[in-house]
Amino acid sequence: MNGNSIGKALVLTCFGESHGACIGAVIDGCPAGLPLTEQDIQAEVNKRRPGFTQLSTKRREEDKVEILSGVYRGYTTGAPICMIVRNLDIKSEKYEKMRYKPRPGHADYTAYMKYSGYNDYRGGGRFSGRITVAYVMAGAIAKKLLRAINVEVLAHTTQIGKVKVKRSLSYEDIRRNTYQNPVRCADPEIAHLMEKEILEAAREGDSVGGIVEGVALNLPVGLGEPIFDSLDADIARMMFNIPAVKGVEFGAGFQSASMRGSENNDQYAIKEGRIITLTNNSGGILGGISNGMPLIVRVAFKPTPSVSKKQRTVDLRMKKETWIEVSGRHDPCIVPRAVPVAEACLAFVLADHAIRSQKIPRVLKKR
Amino acid sequence: MNGNSIGKALVLTCFGESHGACIGAVIDGCPAGLPLTEQDIQAEVNKRRPGFTQLSTKRREEDKVEILSGVYRGYTTGAPICMIVRNLDIKSEKYEKMRYKPRPGHADYTAYMKYSGYNDYRGGGRFSGRITVAYVMAGAIAKKLLRAINVEVLAHTTQIGKVKVKRSLSYEDIRRNTYQNPVRCADPEIAHLMEKEILEAAREGDSVGGIVEGVALNLPVGLGEPIFDSLDADIARMMFNIPAVKGVEFGAGFQSASMRGSENNDQYAIKEGRIITLTNNSGGILGGISNGMPLIVRVAFKPTPSVSKKQRTVDLRMKKETWIEVSGRHDPCIVPRAVPVAEACLAFVLADHAIRSQKIPRVLKKR
Amino acid sequence: MNGNSIGKALVLTCFGESHGACIGAVIDGCPAGLPLTEQDIQAEVNKRRPGFTQLSTKRREEDKVEILSGVYRGYTTGAPICMIVRNLDIKSEKYEKMRYKPRPGHADYTAYMKYSGYNDYRGGGRFSGRITVAYVMAGAIAKKLLRAINVEVLAHTTQIGKVKVKRSLSYEDIRRNTYQNPVRCADPEIAHLMEKEILEAAREGDSVGGIVEGVALNLPVGLGEPIFDSLDADIARMMFNIPAVKGVEFGAGFQSASMRGSENNDQYAIKEGRIITLTNNSGGILGGISNGMPLIVRVAFKPTPSVSKKQRTVDLRMKKETWIEVSGRHDPCIVPRAVPVAEACLAFVLADHAIRSQKIPRVLKKR
Amino acid sequence: MNGNSIGKALVLTCFGESHGACIGAVIDGCPAGLPLTEQDIQAEVNKRRPGFTQLSTKRREEDKVEILSGVYRGYTTGAPICMIVRNLDIKSEKYEKMRYKPRPGHADYTAYMKYSGYNDYRGGGRFSGRITVAYVMAGAIAKKLLRAINVEVLAHTTQIGKVKVKRSLSYEDIRRNTYQNPVRCADPEIAHLMEKEILEAAREGDSVGGIVEGVALNLPVGLGEPIFDSLDADIARMMFNIPAVKGVEFGAGFQSASMRGSENNDQYAIKEGRIITLTNNSGGILGGISNGMPLIVRVAFKPTPSVSKKQRTVDLRMKKETWIEVSGRHDPCIVPRAVPVAEACLAFVLADHAIRSQKIPRVLKKR
Repeated sequence: MNGNSIGKALVLTCFGESHGACIGAVIDGCPAGLPLTEQDIQAEVNKRRPGFTQLSTKRREEDKVEILSGVYRGYTTGAPICMIVRNLDIKSEKYEKMRYKPRPGHADYTAYMKYSGYNDYRGGGRFSGRITVAYVMAGAIAKKLLRAINVEVLAHTTQIGKVKVKRSLSYEDIRRNTYQNPVRCADPEIAHLMEKEILEAAREGDSVGGIVEGVALNLPVGLGEPIFDSLDADIARMMFNIPAVKGVEFGAGFQSASMRGSENNDQYAIKEGRIITLTNNSGGILGGISNGMPLIVRVAFKPTPSVSKKQRTVDLRMKKETWIEVSGRHDPCIVPRAVPVAEACLAFVLADHAIRSQKIPRVLKKR
Repeated sequence: MNGNSIGKALVLTCFGESHGACIGAVIDGCPAGLPLTEQDIQAEVNKRRPGFTQLSTKRREEDKVEILSGVYRGYTTGAPICMIVRNLDIKSEKYEKMRYKPRPGHADYTAYMKYSGYNDYRGGGRFSGRITVAYVMAGAIAKKLLRAINVEVLAHTTQIGKVKVKRSLSYEDIRRNTYQNPVRCADPEIAHLMEKEILEAAREGDSVGGIVEGVALNLPVGLGEPIFDSLDADIARMMFNIPAVKGVEFGAGFQSASMRGSENNDQYAIKEGRIITLTNNSGGILGGISNGMPLIVRVAFKPTPSVSKKQRTVDLRMKKETWIEVSGRHDPCIVPRAVPVAEACLAFVLADHAIRSQKIPRVLKKR
Repeated sequence: MNGNSIGKALVLTCFGESHGACIGAVIDGCPAGLPLTEQDIQAEVNKRRPGFTQLSTKRREEDKVEILSGVYRGYTTGAPICMIVRNLDIKSEKYEKMRYKPRPGHADYTAYMKYSGYNDYRGGGRFSGRITVAYVMAGAIAKKLLRAINVEVLAHTTQIGKVKVKRSLSYEDIRRNTYQNPVRCADPEIAHLMEKEILEAAREGDSVGGIVEGVALNLPVGLGEPIFDSLDADIARMMFNIPAVKGVEFGAGFQSASMRGSENNDQYAIKEGRIITLTNNSGGILGGISNGMPLIVRVAFKPTPSVSKKQRTVDLRMKKETWIEVSGRHDPCIVPRAVPVAEACLAFVLADHAIRSQKIPRVLKKR
Repeated sequence: MNGNSIGKALVLTCFGESHGACIGAVIDGCPAGLPLTEQDIQAEVNKRRPGFTQLSTKRREEDKVEILSGVYRGYTTGAPICMIVRNLDIKSEKYEKMRYKPRPGHADYTAYMKYSGYNDYRGGGRFSGRITVAYVMAGAIAKKLLRAINVEVLAHTTQIGKVKVKRSLSYEDIRRNTYQNPVRCADPEIAHLMEKEILEAAREGDSVGGIVEGVALNLPVGLGEPIFDSLDADIARMMFNIPAVKGVEFGAGFQSASMRGSENNDQYAIKEGRIITLTNNSGGILGGISNGMPLIVRVAFKPTPSVSKKQRTVDLRMKKETWIEVSGRHDPCIVPRAVPVAEACLAFVLADHAIRSQKIPRVLKKR
């Protein structure tokens, strides 16, 4: 019982490996009548490509999107949409010698054990961050669907290593600044410090983690299907399926554990005829259902496990202890490239729920 | 497209409302041949009952478990198991006057909007913490299944309000101490401070939140079905379906965002013939798959939203601003009673995955 | 991986055994705002009760419907609806001696093997026709949902043993006559012959099978989700889950195999402004999608396997050949009682698809 | 809520259109360690290719299979397997003029209505028989999985138009003869008559239907997950998702409706230490579970709806009556080419259930 599909009304099935022929996504349940081109998808995929700076991997993938089905004359047809990007810049030799020596922090050991060594281990195979290009392709469609009901989805870096965004950022800051710097931070000054944090770690053959915040604006009230498909539950599930994620929180999140109820409760008021809350500690979700306030989710990423420092490991065949120095091409911090991924994941879950709630129709407009 | 079922090989379907006839759970997919009695379930349900102290609600439910199907002559039959507890101590009057005045922090507003006011609002209805008795019933079966493959699941309180467990606790501490005090904390001294924290808030008509840690010991390597049914993703999803949860993290969790890769990576070694890691920052999960080390998950609960302090709200019919003072019977801190719930949720997901991975057979033993 | 749930937007989870405490159904996904009482369900369940004639079992079950959740003040709330009927007239002794001697034509042997003997074998347990009372409860809700969009669902007996309805029946015949006779046949004269066919078989300690036809009128065009949830595929799946069903066909069905294309094709015309077909060999489904014409499905039932004639069987413990004479209370022909069951099954699938297609809203009307 | 995935442990997701870029299948849940090459899939796909005789379409597709993921060094890895065949011989012009004139018997009208005209109508688009190449690719993997537990799956034509196989055929006949003639009939003499039946219809610009029988030998006892994923229910559902199928029956099928119970029941005996039944009217399934006897399913296909005779239809834009003469390349009888498709569908469901029942392990062999 594998689990390579997700979503109920909008379903993403994902395939492909880091060093295989391609990474692919099949989207089933996209309403008919959505204008969609390869360029729409490409624009999102490009946001995830490495920045050609010292901050990121030297693997150079063109990541050219091909739509194989489900679109005709520029519109979605209601049939499943298959999209792929081919893997072109593959260097697998290095992985051969590490095959039986699991890299600490990677899925090498668990994948080897689960699949008795049949797994494609090259470049992490199915467990590579590269698979997230499929999430971004799916997210590109989701974002277009959400835009049709005026929902906007954003994401930005709020922490890299020990460097954190401290001041409160406006949504306009996030919109405008995030993609203006290589770390995808909406505060330009902090962005600079974050870059330094990464470069410093890289210089030492080490890596750093960080935090990405996702935001959804203008959500309708009523998305989420408690008790088991609560909106937060489904978003959290999707986020934890991004490699390297170790924590997810909404609104005040872990901080709310030490707050008083009277302080944490978001009280109601009316503003311009709409019911709003005066604070947003809930992060826009109450009882697993969107309340119309901005949805706020934060996702913690561990540091890239690939570090060139010498580490202890074991030889899986010999069952004896040994050492490993991980070479290969990798990002010293994956957080900047995880920003469009988290954004896509958030958008995907929201679009799925918007269809489930019948906020998005089965056919977008009648001809 | 509702979402009142969860799990793939072991499926929990949940029904019932706080002030309806009963709370019920149907478990489909439980292997045949598991010895099971109502007492087995009752013992777990009792852990969740209020403690009859000032720390908890005055609602007195006997919570007597009835098994309606799926068990014959003391063994599971392979057919779905339906279990219910009846609601007996119901006082619904208070809720009538609050019907159109949503309580801040509760699901009143979102449920009203989603179901156009048809939702059963009494006592929070479907959104009450009372529904978690179904999770505990399901968890009781899951724990028995896991015990059959020697897996142990524990949970304990690590924070209440601003009071945190500081010292490192052994699993033996957790096993022995957790249920020796009303706050379900494995450190007896801290437990005392936590009690005071709750009582102080209660005295002020306020409430506090906290953190529960779940632990699974002796897990086989290989549970989890990436890329979308990763073990951590499925556990997080389940946890976020517990009312009041605002954050979930595994191992070093949010802390890992500020760590270096060389520090965060868990290096491998061999101990008594088994492959282990020297640290456990991953919390026992790598690439969404269990690695055989203790699984560590932490769950943040917001403070109980029911506080007697005056709060701003709106009248949903009149669409105007107003005030509310929430009365009713409720826990000033739900964390102690959430301990067996989180434990049950963790056990449920692990048992589901153990069956999916074929670590638990379809029939437990042949006659 | 059990399979005791069915449907995607409207989901039926079924539990209970023939001689257990009750038979139960949980319906998840019923829109909020549907007026619903126990009497609504009871009326449908009563149609399935044995007729108190020689044609049917002597087991006398009151089949009193209890709604345990999901309904408040006479309306569905959007939460899952659990309904049960208790088993009261249970005589299990006879089954004890047959425990290891599988009755030919029943599921005794396969259930014993699949669950290693842990299955509740009393009265056929989970494999008894009695479980279909759950289908009828679900169907009662489905029929109310369909009525809200003007869809009518009917069923009637078209064959019992060798006696077949020959003349063409109007929908008015079916509506008016079906429940006027104990065999549920819309042709009163044939009904008489069918009764005789059953009684003759019964007198000889034998049994007969038959065919039930289901009809849905006024369906919207567009129900069905090809390519794998085609409307006919989902209906067929549901029907084959009724015990004793051995064949399902739509429209011209098996007959179409020997027709020419020019003869079998239903040509289009316009009648009163609506597009219709001049014939209905397709049975109202083209490409797995409803075309707005009457949906016609026929379901073949094998004769009741319980016959008092001596039959060869084996002793499962001794692994040796032996004989059996099946006693117990059973219908010499289950077809008449299968009529409301097939009707319920058809209605259930149609309602599920009507919600999936957004033809039925998530909330039926706003207050 | 689309429905382009099927199966629970082995999941097939299908994409592609008749005149789009390709037809594709993603198989999720295939155990790791199965030897698999493109040639394995190709061999099955070739059986479905048109026979280059007057019996079949003039569309010439190479149908070259490409595996895009999930296989490494000749073995399945446990990751999803994506396979495609490209569409090369496309002639779409003819369809343009028929766009608003639905062809009787095809899905043109229902697809147009469901997707408001956004569907890709060229060559039937998503509703073309061409999509069944995806079923055959999935079936090729399923057959290899079944062979690993010694299960054999066969299919053959038993009726074309009015010509039926009359004599009883041995399994050896079916194995040996089926693919020796263009109609895929295991009785060589009848095959000859069937050919004539097709050619006669073709000459008249008409078409014929027929019946395909599927057989599975050496099945383990215990496949099938009642009550809603009964083995027969799942097989029937899969079969009805083959375009043009109008009926499905098991064992004695519709015939059993007119049989007596004493005659229809399959009595038990012991043969060479194994429990068998003396007849096989059940078609190998009792209570939705395989009983170890040969599984027998028969599938009725309607005649190809594309006939060149003049037919009445409507103009969808003008909403007025008109005429159509269907040209285009099509088979005068699709039954011969449906044989490998039905075989694949049967194999797919059986493999899914064999994994669900844990008869096939998650990893096929340990290295």
